[in-house]
Amino acid sequence: MIKGKNIVGYSESALGSTTFKTFNPKENVANDAIIFEATAEEIDRACNLASKAFKIYRNTPGIKRAAFLNAIADEILALGNNLLDCYVLESGLPKGRAEGERERTIGQLRMFAKLVETEDWREPSHKSEGGSTKKMLIPIGPIAVFGASNFPLAYSTAGGDTASALAAGNPVIVKSHPMHAQTGELIASAIVNAAHKTGMPEGVFSNLNSNGIEVGTQLVLNPNIKAVGFTGSLNGGRALYDLAATREEPIPVFAEMGSINPVVITQKALQTRTPEIANMYADSITMGVGQFCTNPGLIIVLESDLTNSFVELLGEKLAKIPSFCMLHPNIHREYTSNKNLLSSQETVILVNEAEPPTKTNAAQARLVMTKGSSFLKNITLHQEVFGPFSMVVQYKDEDQLIRIIEKIEGQLTGTIIAEKSDYANISPVFEALQERVGRVVFNGVPTGVEVCDAMTHGGPYPASSDSRFTAVGPNAIRRWVRPISYQNVPEILLPEILRG
Amino acid sequence: MIKGKNIVGYSESALGSTTFKTFNPKENVANDAIIFEATAEEIDRACNLASKAFKIYRNTPGIKRAAFLNAIADEILALGNNLLDCYVLESGLPKGRAEGERERTIGQLRMFAKLVETEDWREPSHKSEGGSTKKMLIPIGPIAVFGASNFPLAYSTAGGDTASALAAGNPVIVKSHPMHAQTGELIASAIVNAAHKTGMPEGVFSNLNSNGIEVGTQLVLNPNIKAVGFTGSLNGGRALYDLAATREEPIPVFAEMGSINPVVITQKALQTRTPEIANMYADSITMGVGQFCTNPGLIIVLESDLTNSFVELLGEKLAKIPSFCMLHPNIHREYTSNKNLLSSQETVILVNEAEPPTKTNAAQARLVMTKGSSFLKNITLHQEVFGPFSMVVQYKDEDQLIRIIEKIEGQLTGTIIAEKSDYANISPVFEALQERVGRVVFNGVPTGVEVCDAMTHGGPYPASSDSRFTAVGPNAIRRWVRPISYQNVPEILLPEILRG
Repeated sequence: MIKGKNIVGYSESALGSTTFKTFNPKENVANDAIIFEATAEEIDRACNLASKAFKIYRNTPGIKRAAFLNAIADEILALGNNLLDCYVLESGLPKGRAEGERERTIGQLRMFAKLVETEDWREPSHKSEGGSTKKMLIPIGPIAVFGASNFPLAYSTAGGDTASALAAGNPVIVKSHPMHAQTGELIASAIVNAAHKTGMPEGVFSNLNSNGIEVGTQLVLNPNIKAVGFTGSLNGGRALYDLAATREEPIPVFAEMGSINPVVITQKALQTRTPEIANMYADSITMGVGQFCTNPGLIIVLESDLTNSFVELLGEKLAKIPSFCMLHPNIHREYTSNKNLLSSQETVILVNEAEPPTKTNAAQARLVMTKGSSFLKNITLHQEVFGPFSMVVQYKDEDQLIRIIEKIEGQLTGTIIAEKSDYANISPVFEALQERVGRVVFNGVPTGVEVCDAMTHGGPYPASSDSRFTAVGPNAIRRWVRPISYQNVPEILLPEILRG
Repeated sequence: MIKGKNIVGYSESALGSTTFKTFNPKENVANDAIIFEATAEEIDRACNLASKAFKIYRNTPGIKRAAFLNAIADEILALGNNLLDCYVLESGLPKGRAEGERERTIGQLRMFAKLVETEDWREPSHKSEGGSTKKMLIPIGPIAVFGASNFPLAYSTAGGDTASALAAGNPVIVKSHPMHAQTGELIASAIVNAAHKTGMPEGVFSNLNSNGIEVGTQLVLNPNIKAVGFTGSLNGGRALYDLAATREEPIPVFAEMGSINPVVITQKALQTRTPEIANMYADSITMGVGQFCTNPGLIIVLESDLTNSFVELLGEKLAKIPSFCMLHPNIHREYTSNKNLLSSQETVILVNEAEPPTKTNAAQARLVMTKGSSFLKNITLHQEVFGPFSMVVQYKDEDQLIRIIEKIEGQLTGTIIAEKSDYANISPVFEALQERVGRVVFNGVPTGVEVCDAMTHGGPYPASSDSRFTAVGPNAIRRWVRPISYQNVPEILLPEILRG
């Protein structure tokens, strides 16, 4: 059923001879299908088709683009168990997670469909003071989307970047994630079916395979590409950002590059509900085998006996959570090596860890602890360890706490666990944290990103490459649009929403 | 009266030994005042003060920031004739222009004051579906502003970039334009006076002098700087853009880098009103000695006898407009050399030019003409000639016209001069033009940028470095802000506008 071919406009294409296979991490074997890497010719063709499609697609009425997005959602559902099985095969994640992520993906597509059914998202400005100038938002052109390893659906082929870009009227070329190229192909076929059924121009979507960096590099450097969406590692995102900046016409790159998501817990909160907090965080740290960009990797608490009790309990809870398979042997290898790198730093002590897993590619959760002074001195301790790992940093006084927060790199989220009686004194912490993050959470966990208008998924660098945008929620569309003004333009030529 | 010192926070500072003078282009002599270039120490100090000021300033109530902006406007007015005389001395522009630009500058300051008196600009999002997440826009941090040579007031020290950045709650460090450093000092002193009077924290504003690239380079690379605003040449803007991309923490650069502002004129329009169009464009091409980024440098018309008559008439009108002094001998020199470079290209013919000027640094207006096929082949013909110069390109058929428009680099504006009876057939031209510009003008001239909500001053690269933003109008504030989400944050800690 899986053909392993690239989808270039409305054609399947396999011109090249370089191939690869995806991997089943649970069985520790390569999957059967042979995937063909896109060639330079296929990349160019996809970009040319996208550029041509843009001339038509940008003017497609919103109601038709909405129908296209809804049709994509329908076609994804129609893939049924094939999609879920393929997802599980390539990710090692449980079927329930596949279903949940499919629901989220479909929800996002339908949200953007609803957004563009009316034209309010264009922020039409009806009259200048002089009365002759009007303004609205228009799409910027073909977008290259790089899917995430950890969300084969919601942040990949038909994920938030693709949905928001298509909604605005931009063609999309996906560089499929090599770890789930089969799942990507299924979703790409759903998009193409939807495009056919709703009469979209050829080139509105293409899907290119690659297991290396060449295809992505060529894609970002192609002059027809007008912006890039990326979800993944700091190294990968920064490389694309740097590449885009070298173009004769530089283009915006929105890269969401992960976080350690600091959590500050007050002594009063620990006095009142240590067991509850320990449970909540043992779950959050190991959720999805810790493979979330909002995973809480840093817990900041005052040096105290109470803290020691909490840390011990959190360690115990964490150690009891069964190990589970990671997305890929490479991710498992990196998890192990990064975890060990941080654990081996001076003054870092092991609090607890799960039993050594008996299954292949399963991640052993680990909790370590260090002092605030060490964290301030050693930036290796600020590194993200992608997986079920967290580090407790014990600070000695509030002054040190603030310095720690101010020293942390930009983050997607920052969390405060506090009691009502803390609120009067917590302002400085809250203030400092806000400056480093895109989202502040109170008395909860950072994992779980609600798809809503009020969501910011992004944050100061390196959480994202441009803190002025969000990757989640309807405002994600703003990454792919620009304002245009019409001065003294006759009514008959004006876009309909600007008339009158 | 002019001290030539840098303004670093609330102190005047002249630690360095490198000095320069500004120039009186009309008299062709250097002005008296000695200007001290900022040293590395002064730059660092300004950036550190800005970073400290940000912690206070970002939380200053909107009504207080509005008072600050209004006070800047008042203080600028209070400079009276000193400012106008200094402006004329350093720019060679007439006093009437100085007055007009002062009015515009003050208008912009008051517009942003009004914008931030209420908190709607923050786009507060009151409730997520779950009800626990809220969102609003917050400032991103200290902004480096590089003033323009051609607008000593409206796009310089207290121009649109500074006003919008301060309005949002960001401290500003201006790298004063070396051609009008004295004017810059006067405006900077007005800003500092206003900051004092309205109780703003030290570091909310600094003004640094420099005649070379070192100060700007250090400023953009300083980790305390969080974004850059620039108005000027493509070379200058691109250099800053590239520099910012090399930072460990890359930052947004909004650079507005000029245009040739294509104008398409239909045959029917020429049939009906050749003299009117020729008058209008002779004025627009020479307005402000052609030293506007919206100057019409490219006029695209069908090859015909009618066009030849129009071109001849436009040339005659242009030749009659008296030559006038340019901003600086360097600008005059570049104008002459760029004008000659384009005029000497194969197939380019001289239509007409003004009498050789008798006064020093005065610009001789020139109109040249070429064929569509030449324009398509030779990108030298696409270059901006900053000054009272324009090129007529005669296209042979509509297909060639569309190819010409599609080949033009990104532009601030694109204009169509057409009759009502053209409207039914002009869609393809209108469509193609929209894709290349930030503002489409009908039956008018591109010069003159209304400061209003509906204005887009920006456009696809290289008109600006990021087409998703505008440099003029209230939305210019979006360049310097980012969204932040508050999830489950107690009412008492929430910003006031998000409560309830």
